Amino acid sequence: MPDLTLSPTWQHLTALGQSPIPHLRELLQDPQRQDFIIRAGSLELDFQHQRLTPAILEPLLELASQARIRPQAQAMFLGDVCNTTESRPVLHVALRGNRAQPTPWNAEINTAIHRVLDQVCQFAEDIRGGEKTGFSGEIFTDIVNLGIGGSDLGPKMVCTALEHLTETPLTPHPVKVHFVSNIGAYSLYHTLKNLNPSTTLFVVQSKTFTTQETLLLYQAAQKWLETAGATHHAQHFVAVTANPAQAQQCGFSADRIFQFWDWVGGRYSLWSSIGLPIAIALGNAPFRALLEGAKAMDEHFMRTPARHNLPMVMALLALWNRNFLHFPTHHLAPYIASLVHFVPFIQQMEMESTGKRIDKSNQEVHLQTCPVVWGGLGIDGQHAYFQLLHQGTQTVPIDFIGQRVDTLLQPWMSEQQKVVLLNQTVQARALAIGRTAEETQTVLLQEGVPPEKIPALVPHRTYPGNIPSSTIWLDTLSPYSLGELIALYEHKVFCLACLWDINAYDQWGVELGKSMLKG
Amino acid sequence: MPDLTLSPTWQHLTALGQSPIPHLRELLQDPQRQDFIIRAGSLELDFQHQRLTPAILEPLLELASQARIRPQAQAMFLGDVCNTTESRPVLHVALRGNRAQPTPWNAEINTAIHRVLDQVCQFAEDIRGGEKTGFSGEIFTDIVNLGIGGSDLGPKMVCTALEHLTETPLTPHPVKVHFVSNIGAYSLYHTLKNLNPSTTLFVVQSKTFTTQETLLLYQAAQKWLETAGATHHAQHFVAVTANPAQAQQCGFSADRIFQFWDWVGGRYSLWSSIGLPIAIALGNAPFRALLEGAKAMDEHFMRTPARHNLPMVMALLALWNRNFLHFPTHHLAPYIASLVHFVPFIQQMEMESTGKRIDKSNQEVHLQTCPVVWGGLGIDGQHAYFQLLHQGTQTVPIDFIGQRVDTLLQPWMSEQQKVVLLNQTVQARALAIGRTAEETQTVLLQEGVPPEKIPALVPHRTYPGNIPSSTIWLDTLSPYSLGELIALYEHKVFCLACLWDINAYDQWGVELGKSMLKG
Repeated sequence: MPDLTLSPTWQHLTALGQSPIPHLRELLQDPQRQDFIIRAGSLELDFQHQRLTPAILEPLLELASQARIRPQAQAMFLGDVCNTTESRPVLHVALRGNRAQPTPWNAEINTAIHRVLDQVCQFAEDIRGGEKTGFSGEIFTDIVNLGIGGSDLGPKMVCTALEHLTETPLTPHPVKVHFVSNIGAYSLYHTLKNLNPSTTLFVVQSKTFTTQETLLLYQAAQKWLETAGATHHAQHFVAVTANPAQAQQCGFSADRIFQFWDWVGGRYSLWSSIGLPIAIALGNAPFRALLEGAKAMDEHFMRTPARHNLPMVMALLALWNRNFLHFPTHHLAPYIASLVHFVPFIQQMEMESTGKRIDKSNQEVHLQTCPVVWGGLGIDGQHAYFQLLHQGTQTVPIDFIGQRVDTLLQPWMSEQQKVVLLNQTVQARALAIGRTAEETQTVLLQEGVPPEKIPALVPHRTYPGNIPSSTIWLDTLSPYSLGELIALYEHKVFCLACLWDINAYDQWGVELGKSMLKG
Repeated sequence: MPDLTLSPTWQHLTALGQSPIPHLRELLQDPQRQDFIIRAGSLELDFQHQRLTPAILEPLLELASQARIRPQAQAMFLGDVCNTTESRPVLHVALRGNRAQPTPWNAEINTAIHRVLDQVCQFAEDIRGGEKTGFSGEIFTDIVNLGIGGSDLGPKMVCTALEHLTETPLTPHPVKVHFVSNIGAYSLYHTLKNLNPSTTLFVVQSKTFTTQETLLLYQAAQKWLETAGATHHAQHFVAVTANPAQAQQCGFSADRIFQFWDWVGGRYSLWSSIGLPIAIALGNAPFRALLEGAKAMDEHFMRTPARHNLPMVMALLALWNRNFLHFPTHHLAPYIASLVHFVPFIQQMEMESTGKRIDKSNQEVHLQTCPVVWGGLGIDGQHAYFQLLHQGTQTVPIDFIGQRVDTLLQPWMSEQQKVVLLNQTVQARALAIGRTAEETQTVLLQEGVPPEKIPALVPHRTYPGNIPSSTIWLDTLSPYSLGELIALYEHKVFCLACLWDINAYDQWGVELGKSMLKG
């Protein structure tokens, strides 16, 4: 692809980035600003608080077209070899595709996908229903997921996000899911110390089935069972892998192996059999609803013009903040407490996908790629690092993520929900509009600060504001809307990779450490 | 203080930062590099992998002297009003001082500190020994800490780091400690759903006792107990606060209130009665050992010349990376799995303390202050965002934190420990030295990649290296060494605030949101 940074549009945007842009306090007074709210399915993207005007959005949309995002997306859906350095297609979208109707990818792949999905769902039912048991014949009460990176972050995020669905009146018996990724002694100890070996099932997840950390955890789990007297413990293990032969070598029989494929990247794999713990914890219907939500976002992405296309607009906002306003980091602030593992999941997705310096023509890029993505639950952040967001010396653009209506767990929690919602909207506004020295002076007088002390305090209590943010609203957090939200970020990353002309689907940066360990 | 950025030393360092510095691959070949390892107590700081030469360290040490770090530290220890915008002393160091010997701060403060410390330890013993019980007369099995920010991150980090000490042969009965900070429905639900109201004690932590989030959680906890039939539930609550009158207004009797003082910043408060959950979870001896470790670091900081002073050197390295090499973020990578909450704790300490833009003369600063501090457990990071560290377009300096000998929980975990240790040292080295195109070519040939495919792959599999890092080694993670480690970062932040001439102990950036919520 021709170098986008040489295009007149890019040059124009560079000039716009260097020209003064009105303060957000001013921009937000424009009633037309409502145009910066767009919807897809049950999600809404509100980007009124970005340092952006229609005159800036226009050339950004041109870039999306020049970067050939849409034809590249079509090629991905067709199963073309988009991951060129590893010579593979990129087909995680196929994992949430239709079972029967014709699909862009080939029919054989589709058949295999739905065969495995059915196996996964059947196995989850068997565990939840107590059909499959441990060595003592007892039903499984606990699942321990052994996996790291993509084999951990996605399923853990989803299981936690939707934990309130694990115990419903219809659940035959609840199964708790635990995640161990780190081989440091603490992690396994912390999890296993409260578990009963005879009712614990281990799901060993590794794409290659050669991940040293995961195999060591597998060995440790075997020893733990043996110490408890379970010498025949095959019933306590299943493997999830894209390399079934390797799993068989490690002692797994074919019926204890759930397959996925080399065209599924680890960080895009929760839709595959890597999602087994999700199906076990929540049941099949929620797992399938998660896939449905993602599929709806796929369709929105493929069919909607750029100006109202959520992933495209999010990518263009990220490009604007990174390459024209030069912000080196990007902050995520979910105001939904059960999204406590959302940031590490997206952090991997963005940084492992686009933390690259070589483009698709094998040349060094001439621009900055992925920013440092960081963050955490918004309410907690307000009492910690938000100080720097408000009054530090660098500007940090933010994604707020909230839900309009919470799944009320108890009636007496409604007051809490109101407070969460109010905090989120107030923070977005406070960061955008700030507080001037004059306003601060008035506040200090009202507080009764002695007039002679006011001049020294005013600078410390003034807020420059103008901190850009987007808010992603979920109507409510459900399996379906969570599927939409994850796919939204997946396609945002896809678009950014097109704009930067890099391969989002390899991760050579993790190899050097591995090879140095060996030799 | 005169503007340090105008000093000839600062100008000289600016010139050094703009001049070429040899690649770390070259710097690391110098045998004199061993001089960049310094020790304090059971900690070691290895900064051989920083982009630094003795010719750069020399003027940095001059800056430490020009910034008057030592006299300012002495003023802090004397109890001078160092937090000028709030007109308060800064005396968290007094919380770990000697009981009997003369102290730099005044004797009355010292008496009050040790009176409260004894109360905290006595109460912890009573809970652990079953002397104090719940409404049904049963002993407490679970403690739920309700608090946010500094009332959460510190105690949570310590209790998790040392969880292996909660169950020893000498423990009368183990008490589990849980932490709820976020008012989102999920957090409380997730914790309480597995607890028994009659054996659960709540510790309500708030410096002002007006923190809305914490008071709402307190109300919710009361309702949970009432639903379980405990109408008289005063036995199930204690308050920790610097505002006892406010706690009494909320219904706490004087003997259920543990005090601390307005001269303890929230993010520096785990040494005070905010540490009550630590004493309950681990026992008094480990809690006092934690204080001892911190005191040892205080003494090292006050007595050791700058060149061998761990906090000062860490601050100067941070200054070099931030203000002369212009790196906008700083990464923390603990390779000790139980330090899973260490990053959020240090993130608050650094970013809330030095995320400021106004100096002590009430003027806008002319330099960049606190970087974005982010990170997570190293082993997990390797399978997620380390891609960007190795091959992204921005340089991220790193603190690795490791232990030479792990507290082995089980003999069969020794293999795991070796792997953790090896990964940590290999990553520091790989990030520093990288891999050249020539070396990559050789590796690809060895891997059997067809020669015609090699030229296209080489750029993607080459690593520029030259990523700076420090490693902080603990001999082993213990209460004492953890105390040293935390105090090390506290004093590092103190030094940086001196160098930047800002007040590290206020946090006005959190106020605007609060005032907008009200009005």
